[in-house]
Amino acid sequence: MKMLININGTVCNPEDAKIPVLDRGFLYGDSVYEVTLTYNGIPFLMEEHLDRLWDSALKIDMHLKYSREDIKNEVAKTLKAFNQERVYIRIIITRGEGEIGLDPNLSEDNNLVVIVKELPKNPTWWYEKGVHMIIADVRRLPKKVLDPNLKSGNYLSNVMAHHQAKKIGAFDAILLNMKGYVTEGTTNNIWMVRKDTVITPPLEAGLLEGITRRTLLKIGKAHGIKMIEDNFTPDELKSADEAFLTSSTRELVPITKIDEEVIGHGAPGPMYLKLHQFYREFVQKSIGN
Amino acid sequence: MKMLININGTVCNPEDAKIPVLDRGFLYGDSVYEVTLTYNGIPFLMEEHLDRLWDSALKIDMHLKYSREDIKNEVAKTLKAFNQERVYIRIIITRGEGEIGLDPNLSEDNNLVVIVKELPKNPTWWYEKGVHMIIADVRRLPKKVLDPNLKSGNYLSNVMAHHQAKKIGAFDAILLNMKGYVTEGTTNNIWMVRKDTVITPPLEAGLLEGITRRTLLKIGKAHGIKMIEDNFTPDELKSADEAFLTSSTRELVPITKIDEEVIGHGAPGPMYLKLHQFYREFVQKSIGN
Repeated sequence: MKMLININGTVCNPEDAKIPVLDRGFLYGDSVYEVTLTYNGIPFLMEEHLDRLWDSALKIDMHLKYSREDIKNEVAKTLKAFNQERVYIRIIITRGEGEIGLDPNLSEDNNLVVIVKELPKNPTWWYEKGVHMIIADVRRLPKKVLDPNLKSGNYLSNVMAHHQAKKIGAFDAILLNMKGYVTEGTTNNIWMVRKDTVITPPLEAGLLEGITRRTLLKIGKAHGIKMIEDNFTPDELKSADEAFLTSSTRELVPITKIDEEVIGHGAPGPMYLKLHQFYREFVQKSIGN
Repeated sequence: MKMLININGTVCNPEDAKIPVLDRGFLYGDSVYEVTLTYNGIPFLMEEHLDRLWDSALKIDMHLKYSREDIKNEVAKTLKAFNQERVYIRIIITRGEGEIGLDPNLSEDNNLVVIVKELPKNPTWWYEKGVHMIIADVRRLPKKVLDPNLKSGNYLSNVMAHHQAKKIGAFDAILLNMKGYVTEGTTNNIWMVRKDTVITPPLEAGLLEGITRRTLLKIGKAHGIKMIEDNFTPDELKSADEAFLTSSTRELVPITKIDEEVIGHGAPGPMYLKLHQFYREFVQKSIGN
């Protein structure tokens, strides 16, 4: 797998890409991050991702010594050195290194990491057959503990949920909140279709507001589709006419099975096909094709 | 501050101590750790800390390629190179590096980090005057999300709680569980004294079972003191006769103020003084003095 990593402005190969053990990202997960991809070599919806990165930093009171321009320049520099068409981009900012201790004031000098790697074309079967999800045993972090709408280096609960899915050969796991309502997948947002209505859990359910989620809500509405944000239970999801997930690097992927239940007719449904078509048109328009 | 860091067997200075960006500890907080100290150059209660390290790894299904002997040897090697009497020891094991992705199977080769650093004598005023704690705004992680009795690299919620305390000049913050009962400090266990009874929250409240907590429960009982594990609210804690905290590196520290409330007479109480004396005798006996 081809990859390049930029650490505080220095681009290197992954085997040389190292950060200090004393970095708070390593010790405590005291970091924020974003993931996007390129279409035709151009980072997609970069402004939206930077907005969210700043929002994440604000939520944990992290001082950012970098400007948006700095980060865009580092991403551009790394992409130029990499010189590939279809690229996964991960931007990580930590609170930096310092004395060992929970107090964030022990360090105020960020470390910035930009990872770019080849993004192979997603398997066509995801889109043609749909994927199998499970309902995770672990629940999504409540807002009282740590804002779930925060993309941080604290991902162990999601690691465990994803691990549970992989153990039985499923694609991914869906996390419920403490009340038992659907929130999101471990790295994607969840949608269901009931008759002519497309429903995704509201932010208040406790989830990360996906950029693709926000974009799709707009696109669908612009095409006159009834797109709503509302709570639903796993049982309601399992008995939906259609279900699908969204993520930046995967766009829209149909969900055709959840736990042991087949969703709808067990194949990508008409609403999914329509929305993914609209989304692809939006992408094409955005990248100027 | 003097410090040495051992990474996978190689001992180096902190400025040279680096781990791969692709290490899952850095990307996801997918790591477990322990902290202890030395008395007279000997790691204190090492077997208990290794038990808990193994227990943490088991809780997140982390394969350990190291044996207990391996880890003891690496700690001993690092301590020997450091050659100090009073040392803070942090042992971190991650799931290692691999392809980017939540699936733990993307890496099965641990990285082992041992950090040793000078541990200055704790300030005497902690023990003579007592410390000021606050009740944190954030709540302790519920077991349904991630087992709170797991010492992992996911510490951002505790970082935020500690940050809240530091902002007003307090020593640390006490976290409540989702039901509103006291669980623990960000890196210590909490105790209150009511008449002749010493009470600490039960494991079921959702907390990390401190080694000092477990040790003190035994020592107190052996001295005929009524030591019980029971839930209490922050109001009950604030109106206690005495309160104190325990941690490996700090032993027993009196709490004389919580939020704006003075605890008891605002000075270390008789039960605290007695228990800390018993604890110090236990330490002396354990290290063979």
